[in-house]
Amino acid sequence: MEIKKPTLYIIPNFIGSNDSLENISKYNLRIIDELNYFIVESEKKSRRFIKKILPTKNQDDLIFFQIKKNKNDINNEKYLKPLIKGQNMGLMSDSGNPVIADPGASIINTAHVLKINVKPLVGPSSILLALISSGMKGQRFTFNGYLPINSKERIKKLKLLEKKSKKNDETQIFIETPYRNNQLLDLTKKVLSQNTQLSIASCLNSKDEKIISLSIVEWKKEEINLNKKPTVFLIDAK
Amino acid sequence: MEIKKPTLYIIPNFIGSNDSLENISKYNLRIIDELNYFIVESEKKSRRFIKKILPTKNQDDLIFFQIKKNKNDINNEKYLKPLIKGQNMGLMSDSGNPVIADPGASIINTAHVLKINVKPLVGPSSILLALISSGMKGQRFTFNGYLPINSKERIKKLKLLEKKSKKNDETQIFIETPYRNNQLLDLTKKVLSQNTQLSIASCLNSKDEKIISLSIVEWKKEEINLNKKPTVFLIDAK
Repeated sequence: MEIKKPTLYIIPNFIGSNDSLENISKYNLRIIDELNYFIVESEKKSRRFIKKILPTKNQDDLIFFQIKKNKNDINNEKYLKPLIKGQNMGLMSDSGNPVIADPGASIINTAHVLKINVKPLVGPSSILLALISSGMKGQRFTFNGYLPINSKERIKKLKLLEKKSKKNDETQIFIETPYRNNQLLDLTKKVLSQNTQLSIASCLNSKDEKIISLSIVEWKKEEINLNKKPTVFLIDAK
Repeated sequence: MEIKKPTLYIIPNFIGSNDSLENISKYNLRIIDELNYFIVESEKKSRRFIKKILPTKNQDDLIFFQIKKNKNDINNEKYLKPLIKGQNMGLMSDSGNPVIADPGASIINTAHVLKINVKPLVGPSSILLALISSGMKGQRFTFNGYLPINSKERIKKLKLLEKKSKKNDETQIFIETPYRNNQLLDLTKKVLSQNTQLSIASCLNSKDEKIISLSIVEWKKEEINLNKKPTVFLIDAK
């Protein structure tokens, strides 16, 4: 008889308002339907996601372990107790894939230390979708997360990313808190070289999805409002 | 009446031998079923993929434009002719997502220049699945593609990636031609620091899927054969 090791499934959530049952694979549905224990960014949003994709699944049976945002919380084993006792679990964040600009990594690391099976499920990542649709190279790329908030440091960072992109022939990817997107777009237009390519991927998997890839000189003629719209920025300097 | 702009869909292929109809979303199936024109890495593998997921789709109607591997081929507009004439197209590589360590980027770039709509579909990326299951941070990461083949340069590069990972708190990802995986694994064990974390994700979405994350000192006690098995390598230096 095959003895199945308890497994921690890494579960992608939806990323856009158009995401529906049609966007999720049968495999993911089947795995999520089999699980009762979840490690999540927030219980409320995870319950909503599960209700949307599996309306008949009994929500009363579900047990959620919310990831503490306190960075000093390194007692990860407590999240993994059901696994240690032999139950499968799912790890889920509020949007897209866990770990990518989201929490979860250190818990997965602890799972590896405890020799727990880790199994990632396929789903939407705005970073990856932005990259493949940008027209920029995917042989080498860096995801830089958020840029510094301080204005001087931010300008310095943008110039550094442009330099790195040119030197290493490497696409540079970054994000911003959505209500500051317009400011960041304006700054890139001001700070980067005319020939540098800037791509934005906004509201992916939503009706308002916009993927635009232009040189800075062309961007100066563009009018676009990115305020409060989840957006990924990419630059490719030549 | 809504006038729909011709769209270039970026279509992920399967990555593993266990990938089946169960792993693909209805949305992707529907879009692929609507398309007759495809830009592909190889016609044969693309036909096989479409046959597998849409066995009743008439293969005689399909027209394939194979991406030339010659790097001097910059006449991308010829691939996009059906789009220019108003037909939707799909861009597909032989495994996983186009662009990521695969061709396609410069054709997508030309599509942007021609103001053609670009729409990425969600699917498996071994690089992304490896990252989210590694237990390593996803706030900052670099995909470095292939390491240099020359032995001295390769050692230098591994040490540089370790240094960069430490300095920038950034996960470093790279790949190798599968028949040289064992050599590369041996080299990492020899060259990297004892405390550096090395993760491998091998044969993702196959029966032989293996995701292992250990420090170099622990790796020295491990025996694993990665020969000819598609594998993603990740390092996180502390």
